[in-house]
Amino acid sequence: MRIALVAPLAEAVPPKLYGGTERVVSWLAEELVRQGHEVTLFASAESQTTARLVRCAPQSLRLAGIRDHIGSTLAMLREVRRRADEFDVIHFHIDLLPNALFHDLAHKCLITLHGRLDMPDAFPLYEAYPEMPLVSISDSQRGPMPDCANWLTTIKHGLGRGLCPFDPEGGDYLAFLGRISPEKRPDRAIEIARLSGVQLRIAAKIDNVDLEYFNTMIEPMLDHPLIEFIGEINEDEKREFLGKARALLFPIDWPEPFGLVMIESMSAGTPVIAWRGGSVPEVIADGVSGVIVDSMAGAVAAVRTVSELSRAGVRAEFERRFTAERMALAYVAAYRTLLARREALSHAPAPHAARAFRAAPAFIVEPTAAKSVLETPLAESA
Amino acid sequence: MRIALVAPLAEAVPPKLYGGTERVVSWLAEELVRQGHEVTLFASAESQTTARLVRCAPQSLRLAGIRDHIGSTLAMLREVRRRADEFDVIHFHIDLLPNALFHDLAHKCLITLHGRLDMPDAFPLYEAYPEMPLVSISDSQRGPMPDCANWLTTIKHGLGRGLCPFDPEGGDYLAFLGRISPEKRPDRAIEIARLSGVQLRIAAKIDNVDLEYFNTMIEPMLDHPLIEFIGEINEDEKREFLGKARALLFPIDWPEPFGLVMIESMSAGTPVIAWRGGSVPEVIADGVSGVIVDSMAGAVAAVRTVSELSRAGVRAEFERRFTAERMALAYVAAYRTLLARREALSHAPAPHAARAFRAAPAFIVEPTAAKSVLETPLAESA
Repeated sequence: MRIALVAPLAEAVPPKLYGGTERVVSWLAEELVRQGHEVTLFASAESQTTARLVRCAPQSLRLAGIRDHIGSTLAMLREVRRRADEFDVIHFHIDLLPNALFHDLAHKCLITLHGRLDMPDAFPLYEAYPEMPLVSISDSQRGPMPDCANWLTTIKHGLGRGLCPFDPEGGDYLAFLGRISPEKRPDRAIEIARLSGVQLRIAAKIDNVDLEYFNTMIEPMLDHPLIEFIGEINEDEKREFLGKARALLFPIDWPEPFGLVMIESMSAGTPVIAWRGGSVPEVIADGVSGVIVDSMAGAVAAVRTVSELSRAGVRAEFERRFTAERMALAYVAAYRTLLARREALSHAPAPHAARAFRAAPAFIVEPTAAKSVLETPLAESA
Repeated sequence: MRIALVAPLAEAVPPKLYGGTERVVSWLAEELVRQGHEVTLFASAESQTTARLVRCAPQSLRLAGIRDHIGSTLAMLREVRRRADEFDVIHFHIDLLPNALFHDLAHKCLITLHGRLDMPDAFPLYEAYPEMPLVSISDSQRGPMPDCANWLTTIKHGLGRGLCPFDPEGGDYLAFLGRISPEKRPDRAIEIARLSGVQLRIAAKIDNVDLEYFNTMIEPMLDHPLIEFIGEINEDEKREFLGKARALLFPIDWPEPFGLVMIESMSAGTPVIAWRGGSVPEVIADGVSGVIVDSMAGAVAAVRTVSELSRAGVRAEFERRFTAERMALAYVAAYRTLLARREALSHAPAPHAARAFRAAPAFIVEPTAAKSVLETPLAESA
């Protein structure tokens, strides 16, 4: 199949540092190529791929210091549009702009929504451009979205089998990995460790925006013999860090749309103790790949029992549900669904696309003033 | 002529509080209606106009607490697109998105750029979509833009004749009006007043982002018998405030793209003492409607000589160059230029639009990696 993947320009694909979306796009691109598809990747110039790369920005925008990504993204989308005939399917990993710019090609397009969707700012867009097929990365991610959203399917992220190798031994500490921020609740992780008397190692970066939270809330909690803050770690250190842990703590307090670190941990064979919320019940098989808890008492109890879970069983659950191969196969199935729909529509009496757009009732046309504001003082016109 | 005006959704048209762009769009809409055109205004629902209003958001986005305006704006643009055949010309007062969404209708579209243009983030857009005719609000505003920008003309803003009525008497204080912020240089205004021994009245709002600047830099300078800080004023108070002044101080330190307050002051007959920069030399006729200075000494000298300027002469300069009527006539001339070009092109052998798009050299296509990153550790792929 001839597949276009359109990545964010914020980071390279794969990213040189962070960038969850760009990492997933990279894994998907490589796996689709491996499965024999003809893949074209639209991404920033320093991306590395076995697919055909269309360089759409001379450098990743974050490294280039470009804050407003709209101009560069719209420029990329013109190039995608210019080549649209070269592809059977165009798979976007950026949202909002493709809905508006490709709605007339919606029959061969889909958008994976990578972020949280509980911000109403974007809802008018989905109401105005309801044609575009959308893919969620968990079912729970869909919750806040308006009814008009045109969901095609849910496809959970997948990881290459070798990226976080299985460690049959594990270790004895609890691991917290990711970002220091209020919604990730590192404070809960520390409390769990203290109450259960088990060592906690925290490997996390601190964004500027979270520096005050770290300084005032977290740093004072670190002065305890069981707590070790090791800061930011690289990908090599991460494999060791996850593989040698007793369990990963994932005590989130926000509607996590997916949570890549959970499947990285599962890949290493390390079970996850996770707070119920967002995608957690869809990612963790309770009692197989981890323990889902709702309270501090539950979390402390889980620390005691989690070692009873088979690490091989955790890895098997990863292999069954969260490999990049499985993710790519699911996307290919979604692409084929689109192609089949298009085929069916080409034989139908009236085009589906023409019916799909419902004029939003907000657009009312009428004059609102009998006299002009031009010659009256401004105060009266307000 | 059948004219569509497309306003920002941030504020109502006219705005209930601030919003320079929405004020100008309102004045233009009312004047075009007065001149007999069929005007359709796309704006937020609480807008007030004698034009036909298409309500594109239930409330202005700022008042509705919507931070990210892209979704609502793209929804509005679909409605504009749906009605495009109803208009001879579509005049946008928002940038970036229409360049991408209406490039194939560029022969009947134009965009007035209302902001500063020295941020390179948007340049890739102008390179990718060079067709769209652009209107600058001063010639100096164009300076930083890339060569590919398709400038149609410069049209300076205009004001209704009655909005800031002519005051033949004036008064004796210096006026500073607008916003407290570093680039507006209220500190310079205070220094000018102290050095020249003339009273300064400062009528200005303080945005949250400028609160620290006010507290640390400006507030300590206010404790002086010549300086009066009267805070934010409404439009009624503004007319009195401008009309009763000896001169308006406009000691800016940034590339001001236009500066509405200068023509409001001129409308009242009050001359402007302005620092050379941005649009200032295009708006102020030095020695007629004000004095252009480059230094503190020049500004202090200007305070002594500015009363020699005829207030009637200042108003006459306003009447000649900065009324809403003149602005609307200039826009109608620009619209007619577009229509004439379209007419000429319809007889030409090849469509201009097809030639206009130059594929940007950044889009290079090639594979970049011999082996997939999927099965290698992440560290090697970075």
